This record gives sequence, C-alpha cells and structure tokens, in this order.
Amino acid sequence: VRVVSLPGDPGIGPRLADLLGLEYIQFLHKKFPDGEIYLRLPKVIENEGVLLVQSMYPNQNDHTVELLLALELLSRYRNNITLLITYLAYARQDKEFLAGEPVSLRSLVKALSSLGLGTLVTIDAHSPLALREFLGTSRYINIVPDEVFAEAISRRYRREELTVIAPDQGAEKRAASLAELLGCRYVVVKKARDRITGNVTHVLDPLDSVSGIAVVVDDIVSTGGTIAGIASYLSSRGVRVVVAASHALFVGDAYDKLARSGVVEIYALPTTGVTVSGVTYLDMVPYIARKLREEKVVE
Amino acid sequence: VRVVSLPGDPGIGPRLADLLGLEYIQFLHKKFPDGEIYLRLPKVIENEGVLLVQSMYPNQNDHTVELLLALELLSRYRNNITLLITYLAYARQDKEFLAGEPVSLRSLVKALSSLGLGTLVTIDAHSPLALREFLGTSRYINIVPDEVFAEAISRRYRREELTVIAPDQGAEKRAASLAELLGCRYVVVKKARDRITGNVTHVLDPLDSVSGIAVVVDDIVSTGGTIAGIASYLSSRGVRVVVAASHALFVGDAYDKLARSGVVEIYALPTTGVTVSGVTYLDMVPYIARKLREEKVVE
Repeated sequence: VRVVSLPGDPGIGPRLADLLGLEYIQFLHKKFPDGEIYLRLPKVIENEGVLLVQSMYPNQNDHTVELLLALELLSRYRNNITLLITYLAYARQDKEFLAGEPVSLRSLVKALSSLGLGTLVTIDAHSPLALREFLGTSRYINIVPDEVFAEAISRRYRREELTVIAPDQGAEKRAASLAELLGCRYVVVKKARDRITGNVTHVLDPLDSVSGIAVVVDDIVSTGGTIAGIASYLSSRGVRVVVAASHALFVGDAYDKLARSGVVEIYALPTTGVTVSGVTYLDMVPYIARKLREEKVVE
Repeated sequence: VRVVSLPGDPGIGPRLADLLGLEYIQFLHKKFPDGEIYLRLPKVIENEGVLLVQSMYPNQNDHTVELLLALELLSRYRNNITLLITYLAYARQDKEFLAGEPVSLRSLVKALSSLGLGTLVTIDAHSPLALREFLGTSRYINIVPDEVFAEAISRRYRREELTVIAPDQGAEKRAASLAELLGCRYVVVKKARDRITGNVTHVLDPLDSVSGIAVVVDDIVSTGGTIAGIASYLSSRGVRVVVAASHALFVGDAYDKLARSGVVEIYALPTTGVTVSGVTYLDMVPYIARKLREEKVVE
C-alpha cells in the first residue's frame, strides 16, 4: 500500500505514511490558465494498494474534480483504492428535503464509485447511514475520533463539572457517546431548521439545569450560529462553554461569533485546509492509523 | 420534452425552448455560506424527456458539480435526459500525454454517465472521437456549426480574397470543411506544443503564399497566443486576419493580444458565460434547434 495525497490533503497523508511505515507520494498539481485542474502522479503505480487522502474544504468543487481525476488514473492502472476523505463535502444534503432538490451526497458518491473506488473512509461523516446506502457494494468505514476528544477534555477538566450538550437531536448519539467516555451526563437541545431560509428555532430550557463546564459537541461547525446561541444562553448563566467539533469550517466571522458568545475553548480535528488561530486542533493521526490497521486497510 | 437550464447556461436554453415550442424551466441555485452549491428544480419532472443545458466555462469545477447534482435529480425521477453542453471543459486532456496523468475527459464522462445520462450533445467538442469511446452505450451528438461561420463570413467577404488557416494539424479537418463551404483554399500551420511547459514551435513558411483575407479557424481560443503569433506574421505581410473560433475563452489579455497582432475581426459562438466586447457572436441557436430536430432529440 502507498499513501497518495491530493491537493486538499491537510497534511494527514505524510504523517499517516510515516506512522504506518508506508511509501508516500503526492500528486503534482496546477491550474491551467483557463482554470482547469491539471494533476499528475510523479510515479506510475500499477496493481498496488493505494490509500488516497483528500479533504474537500475549502473549495469543495475543485476538490471534487480532483477526486474524479485521481480515481480515473489510479483505477485505470488497476490499483485497489482506499479513499480517505478527512472532510466530506455535500454530506448534509443526504436526502430530498424539498421536492426538486438533488440528493447531493448521492450524486457525489455515485460519481466517485463509477471511477473505481474500492473502500471509502471518512472522518466523522455527517450521514454515514446514507453514505453506506449510496455506496452500494463498495466498502465503507466511518472513523469517529470520540476518544481523541475525550482524552483532551479529561486532561483539562474534572468530570464532575462537565455536561455534554447536543445542539440538536442529530447530535444526540454523539453527545451520549462522548458523555459516556467522559463519565458525565448530557443534555439535548431541540432545534428545527428551515432548509431554504436557514431560520432556526431552539428550545433552550433544558440548559437551565447545566452548571460548571458545558461541552457543546457537533460534527460540523459552519457559520457557528447555532452553537453561539447556545453558548450565549449558557455563559449568561455562569456556565463555562467548551466546543468540541470534528470539522471546524468557521465560515466568515464564525470564530469571533463564538468567542463573543462566551466560548472559552474550541477543540477541533485538522480535517480541512483551514486553520483558525485560537482553535485547539487535536492530533487524530495516530487514532486513524490504528483504525486503518484494525480494519485491515493496511497491514 | 422540457428544456431545463443549469446555472452555466449562457442563455441558450430559453431561446431553444422558444424556437422548438417547448416548456422552459430553470434550476434555482445558490451557494451555501460554506461554498457548497444548492440546486432546486422549482417543478418536479417525472418520466419525461428533458433537454438539460449547461456551459462549463468559466468556473469549470462548479459547473461540473452542478451537472452531477442535476443528473442525480433528473434520473432519480426516471426522466430521459439529453444533456447539451455548449462548452465542454476538460476536453483537451483526452489521453495520457505523460505517464501518471489522469485522462480528465474520461473521468468527467464516466462520472456523468454513472448518473443516468441518456444522450450527450456538444457544440464543436475538442475530442469527439475520444468522447464517443468514453461514453460507452450513451448516445453522442457533436454539433459543428461550420455553416453558421461560413454564412457570416460569406456575407462580408468575397471568396476570391479568402484563405482559411488551420493554426495546427488538429484544425486541418475544420479548415478544410470551412474552406469548402466558403469555396476557397486552406493552409495548415504545423505546430508542436509541450504539454507541461506549454512551449509552442511553429512552421510559418506556408503562410507566405497567403494574401487578401486570412480566416484563422480553431475550436477553442484560450490565451490566444498561437493565433496571435500567426496573425502577427500574416499582418506584417499585408494580409488582413479574421479569426473564427467556436469557443472564445479569452483568458487574461487574450483579446488585446489578438487586436495588437493585427486581427481585424473575431467571430465566435456564444457557448460560454464570458462575453468579450469587440467579438462578433454568431447566433447558433436556430442551427442547433434544426440539428436537434434532425437527430430526433426533439420532435
């Protein structure tokens, strides 16, 4: 197995190769003057196992095209391809919310599959169940580094002062799992979002029982609006708020919004090409390497 | 059959629908704050014929993703999809020029096909033979509007003063065809381009026999460098130079470069989202409508 990075890889490929003792290769890339992407693998790999590493944020559409190109090349040379996407774009449009909407995740997964994808590995994907369904016969592994968060939070805070907060029903399983690892309780905030207007309504009353440290968990923090609302509510009641999110997209002024709302610490994973100063990025690579070994993706 | 436009459509869809007497619908579109594309068809179309119209320039990768999304939706509703791509991106990377290069066109075509493409229609695609091969069982129609150019040029110039120029061997067939329609002769310039450095060498001597009006033809004008070189050579010898190109991408200062090199008139087709002042865009829509009828894509 060789580890091959695409241009979106936020430095995970070389560290994985190092930890796993595998050869590392990087796609050469440029844009033509007209804006088309050009890729080239500096070394032909044929009839091998390939662990291809990519993130799809920012510039989701460029990174989508890079994936199509790379899979075409690697499968034409009959390689057995495992694709590790550290941040999977279009994962939130996993069904037809309103009539006439594409299921974006399905289109992406079908396009990738058609180009010879063997195994797909994601880091804490938003819709693992939908993904598995869309993938058909390809193998799928979703790595959720709960333990990485639990370890960092436990090192810093005492479990007696902790409550994990799920900012919506969709995050309940995630909150329950982290709370179990931390040995604390969790609370779920009910949320309803209008897909088109983006308007969100919350039921914040359950938060009145929280004191000490609140750990608000989510898979993706985009504009940070939801979490900032919850953090303001909590911090105005004297609760210290910590955020633990796998994918910190932090669109626009998301970081400032969270800081202003009283968030005292933000833990995230280095899954995207964006690094925000003030965020504590946890080292997930040893955990991923261990999982890939356990799943026999690599020996 | 309904005509449906994607965001890249440079206004061809509505005019085609009008000429063909078909219902016209446009995808609603926006970008989410994180940069992901959102599409929605304001009306569900099910078990119908759909003529989907898109251009892939500029912003080739955004328009690629739009195509994937739209095909997913339309094929999930069991429509019979004809996709008209007025400018097809990635058509020039139609083989592995250097070892380790993806065949970009193949990856694009395979991805589109996997999402339920019935018939593909292109306007003067760069690599129709490769396209047909990559498409497998899908139907493929390449519309080359030679007659549209011939008509415009004949209206303006006398055939006795015309010579058609192919700027490289790849344009020879195109030059021969236009010359035949115009009733004049043609000359081919030999060219060699290094795929990586982009360096081009020309053999311009055959142009010494040209006088009067030279019509330089090509499918795509990107940075305009090749044609500007030929135009400078010709105009310094007193030849008036006209350019006839299907797809005028005109990257950067391409237009100024051509104007400075002595080009007196540029004919192009409105196949992209870019409109350059000074270029004469020829109305190709009646020609396309006629071809689509002849090919029974629409009744």
